[in-house]
Amino acid sequence: MSNKIKTYKKDLDYSYTLGVFLTIQLLELYPQYVTKVINSSNSFKNSGLDKILELCKKHNIPIETSDKCINKLSPKGNCYSIGVFNKYKEPLKPNENHIVLVNPSNSGNLGTIIRSSLGFGIKNIAIIRPGVDIFDPKVIRASMGAIFHVSFEYYDSFNDYINNFKSHNIYTFMLNGKKKLSTLDEVSKEPFSLVFGNEASGLSEEFKDIGTSIVIPHSQDIDSLNLSVAVSIAEYQFTKNNF
Amino acid sequence: MSNKIKTYKKDLDYSYTLGVFLTIQLLELYPQYVTKVINSSNSFKNSGLDKILELCKKHNIPIETSDKCINKLSPKGNCYSIGVFNKYKEPLKPNENHIVLVNPSNSGNLGTIIRSSLGFGIKNIAIIRPGVDIFDPKVIRASMGAIFHVSFEYYDSFNDYINNFKSHNIYTFMLNGKKKLSTLDEVSKEPFSLVFGNEASGLSEEFKDIGTSIVIPHSQDIDSLNLSVAVSIAEYQFTKNNF
Repeated sequence: MSNKIKTYKKDLDYSYTLGVFLTIQLLELYPQYVTKVINSSNSFKNSGLDKILELCKKHNIPIETSDKCINKLSPKGNCYSIGVFNKYKEPLKPNENHIVLVNPSNSGNLGTIIRSSLGFGIKNIAIIRPGVDIFDPKVIRASMGAIFHVSFEYYDSFNDYINNFKSHNIYTFMLNGKKKLSTLDEVSKEPFSLVFGNEASGLSEEFKDIGTSIVIPHSQDIDSLNLSVAVSIAEYQFTKNNF
Repeated sequence: MSNKIKTYKKDLDYSYTLGVFLTIQLLELYPQYVTKVINSSNSFKNSGLDKILELCKKHNIPIETSDKCINKLSPKGNCYSIGVFNKYKEPLKPNENHIVLVNPSNSGNLGTIIRSSLGFGIKNIAIIRPGVDIFDPKVIRASMGAIFHVSFEYYDSFNDYINNFKSHNIYTFMLNGKKKLSTLDEVSKEPFSLVFGNEASGLSEEFKDIGTSIVIPHSQDIDSLNLSVAVSIAEYQFTKNNF
């Protein structure tokens, strides 16, 4: 990485956390990938700064003070600290439950999904390309740092995914799914994979014959639920006996 | 309203829909409040334009073509049509179920909540001030037009709300709620009010003794669920026998 940090682009091999809270989580969980921390000149006002200084010292991570850089990377303002890190891999765990997102396109949705998934104990996220970059700063922010607690992996096709996890029980979520989520009798055949389509187009018809297709019933007054809402409701239903 | 449309501010007495889909819904449901429709010069490319022209003609609503105005109000681009309308009132229905949001601050969350609420048949939204403006174009967009299908009302305090709806069964959602949502035995005492706090702070402790306090159980790995996710899960659970 050059010394000059560029504003986020999907194809850069690094990204960053915006804000003290997220930067602390990054430093605590993945210090080995952090190349630099950038603080604003008034970051001393934030009570989390000491923790950042301590973690940077412990892991020998350089600190820079640059309001110009902060304003460039976080134009909305009110950001005291940014952690710059190299994108890393964290492969899916084969014996655990998975969320599979086919072509997710909205960074806020992906972040919210990661937050809910961690909340309901489903710590593995598979993404079928094309899909939003999980390291987009907007994903990191919407995840509230949950991204640093999950495994994730990208696949070129759903077949690529499924060939790696043949013993997973597949549940595909579709508006015309065969079973209602609320009356599902066998909700905990583990390990399971809960599969969801793109925000605008959902899963295509061929998914109906893969595993068990499920509908989250709602009125005809809306076309569909928001994707992060649909995933979260499914996760709630599948894991509610665990909490 | 002056002829010159200002970019959205909470205290203006008008707002607008961004995009053909939302503008059609506005024109179909509240034509009496629409003062003007603004189209881009290439709006003819969008298949919904004919419908907009037809509805404007039917209701005698002036149409303007102005790329400058479109770009000002919708800086992200890709917007073919904007409907300008006077903010209106649509009082809560006293015998129906309600969602009560205490100090909601995020426009995207509010829009997503309205979308889910309509989906689960809960068509009344009470907002306790201070709270985001329901007519913020970002709320309208995140609602996917569901806003035009619900009733809503603002109150200065929760007491003001409850004094108007004394026969509603109150359920307050809190991280330390006394009952688990998933094991609730009496989920359909109607009419009910599901009450949720602010994104950052939740409901304050005094809500614990109002009605039945409920927790949506999740792991300790996250502080809380996203507000729109929490509301949607509660709505799903409370209404799942209706769909």
